[in-house]
Amino acid sequence: MHYKLALIGFGNVARSLAKLLLRKQAVLKSKYDITFSFTGISTGRHGFAVNPNGLDIEKALELVENGKDISSLNNSQFPITDSLSVIQHSSADVLFENSPVNTQTGQPALDHIRLALNLRMHAITANKGPLVHGYRELTQLAESKGKKFQFESTILGGAPVFSVMREAFPLADLESFKGIFNATTNIILSCMENGESYEAAVKYCQSIGVAETDPTNDVDGWDAAIKVCALVTVLWDTPITPQEINPIGIRGITAEMIAKAKSENKRYKLVCSAEKIDGKINASVSPQLVDAASPLYGMMNSSTGVTFRTDVILDYSIALSEKPGLQGGPVETAYGLFADFVNIVK
Amino acid sequence: MHYKLALIGFGNVARSLAKLLLRKQAVLKSKYDITFSFTGISTGRHGFAVNPNGLDIEKALELVENGKDISSLNNSQFPITDSLSVIQHSSADVLFENSPVNTQTGQPALDHIRLALNLRMHAITANKGPLVHGYRELTQLAESKGKKFQFESTILGGAPVFSVMREAFPLADLESFKGIFNATTNIILSCMENGESYEAAVKYCQSIGVAETDPTNDVDGWDAAIKVCALVTVLWDTPITPQEINPIGIRGITAEMIAKAKSENKRYKLVCSAEKIDGKINASVSPQLVDAASPLYGMMNSSTGVTFRTDVILDYSIALSEKPGLQGGPVETAYGLFADFVNIVK
Repeated sequence: MHYKLALIGFGNVARSLAKLLLRKQAVLKSKYDITFSFTGISTGRHGFAVNPNGLDIEKALELVENGKDISSLNNSQFPITDSLSVIQHSSADVLFENSPVNTQTGQPALDHIRLALNLRMHAITANKGPLVHGYRELTQLAESKGKKFQFESTILGGAPVFSVMREAFPLADLESFKGIFNATTNIILSCMENGESYEAAVKYCQSIGVAETDPTNDVDGWDAAIKVCALVTVLWDTPITPQEINPIGIRGITAEMIAKAKSENKRYKLVCSAEKIDGKINASVSPQLVDAASPLYGMMNSSTGVTFRTDVILDYSIALSEKPGLQGGPVETAYGLFADFVNIVK
Repeated sequence: MHYKLALIGFGNVARSLAKLLLRKQAVLKSKYDITFSFTGISTGRHGFAVNPNGLDIEKALELVENGKDISSLNNSQFPITDSLSVIQHSSADVLFENSPVNTQTGQPALDHIRLALNLRMHAITANKGPLVHGYRELTQLAESKGKKFQFESTILGGAPVFSVMREAFPLADLESFKGIFNATTNIILSCMENGESYEAAVKYCQSIGVAETDPTNDVDGWDAAIKVCALVTVLWDTPITPQEINPIGIRGITAEMIAKAKSENKRYKLVCSAEKIDGKINASVSPQLVDAASPLYGMMNSSTGVTFRTDVILDYSIALSEKPGLQGGPVETAYGLFADFVNIVK
């Protein structure tokens, strides 16, 4: 079985995905008899290319990584001027949606995925926006077309969470979850425990490419909140917005508070939690003191993780450890997209 | 679809499974249109009962929990004198094998599962013995009959591990794992950190029903070793025996060693680990010093867990937390058996 793939967004994650697919090409063929080609690519600043017979992906990677435009690879008979036209004319079987996150509306990713599903493509995304703003609609649309909408990479950066709850916890009732979902704030709090100022810690995060120039989205809890929304929306099939969660970030945590906590063998963590009681969901994001008995206590620096409590297994935790000196992020996020693809087509 | 179930072994875990199945009966019917009945039960000390038309399971539970024999429920036209005759005449579709563990040979569980598969039943076990001593044979036998051999409950007491690696890590190459698999030794080491003697800690474990009268199997590392064997055997499809692992237990850990470790912010843990390098597997069980950077550091008392390193996701940890004051063990192990059943029949 041959699959034509369209990539909307061609940043670090999408390029890592392309490289991972190339690296796993032989085993996909030998184990599942699956082959693939790339038939559409939409970049943010380096143009668009469509070729239903298959684009030269190695060349596309080389061009973009050298800051060049990929339009020279375009071979479509139609005008290709934006992401929608890439999807429309790519003849793809699978869309990978990795455009920038829009936490307020989920756009334009929502429209990309709608179009793809309507054209009978599977849709896979690492983008929290369309998941939170369109989970039910997109899942129902996918079902009506006999296709899948998948999103494993949205929470713990590619580490399995949704597939674990879906496949490994059959007929379990989720009662609550509690986790650390935002690496930037966890790094900042870890640095502050080591005596650094908040400002220096933010600068450090910016210097290693973890925090943006304006760190609001991380430090005020919005990134954490939209991840809570994603879990609540999917695992309890109950839509919720970041605004409803009304997150409290870490700006109010002072060096004095951290020192006092440390003296009591406790730590501040930006805790993401939700529980379902009598059918009602309470969700929150706020800095909380945790002690050594909590699975969150040991998650330092860029470690993230979540603890699920169900009616059958009490307090099952998943954690993704920090990787000092090791390449992590984009490669792992790319694996989440890859795993979604394999699980759909295998 | 109706499933007839045979229970070989009717101890805490199997009785918890029966109760869990009854509790989830309605959702099994409504979600998957699955119904079930119990057609064979083999107990260790309370007799045998077979009824292909369905046994009164509530009555069987009541009898055994009051120390009585279940033979009064037997309604078979054949002589039912042992576990094999229960399997033979139960007309079951699914065998749940929960007889006592035999780490040396895997018997008699191995014969129970062989017979069930040959009679075209699915076979599900919480028993490490037949898994370690018969994984390849039983898996191939199951495949040849179009049936399944499953064993989720063997490692972390019912918490998903095998299904996570199977379903959530498609085409990932496992490079190594490291974990704490034996609760008894972890409780003993935790108690010793709190100043208790080794002997007092062992007595405490015996008093709460975690350790047996002869604690050798736990404290000398054999239970941990057979769990390492189970993971190695399944995840790398490479048979290995506890004897080959040659475990080192915790008898050599003194109060002085623990105090010294504590003063350096370290802890002794009975670490189970294995890695595959150039196709060769190195596996070990031994007490090791871990520091706060290790995901194992925070696993205290009855907590257990494992960290997997793969070529795509670095250091993904699964942990099952201790449950102070909460019923854990048998109910969770029962869920692993239940999850295997649902995943087979859904």
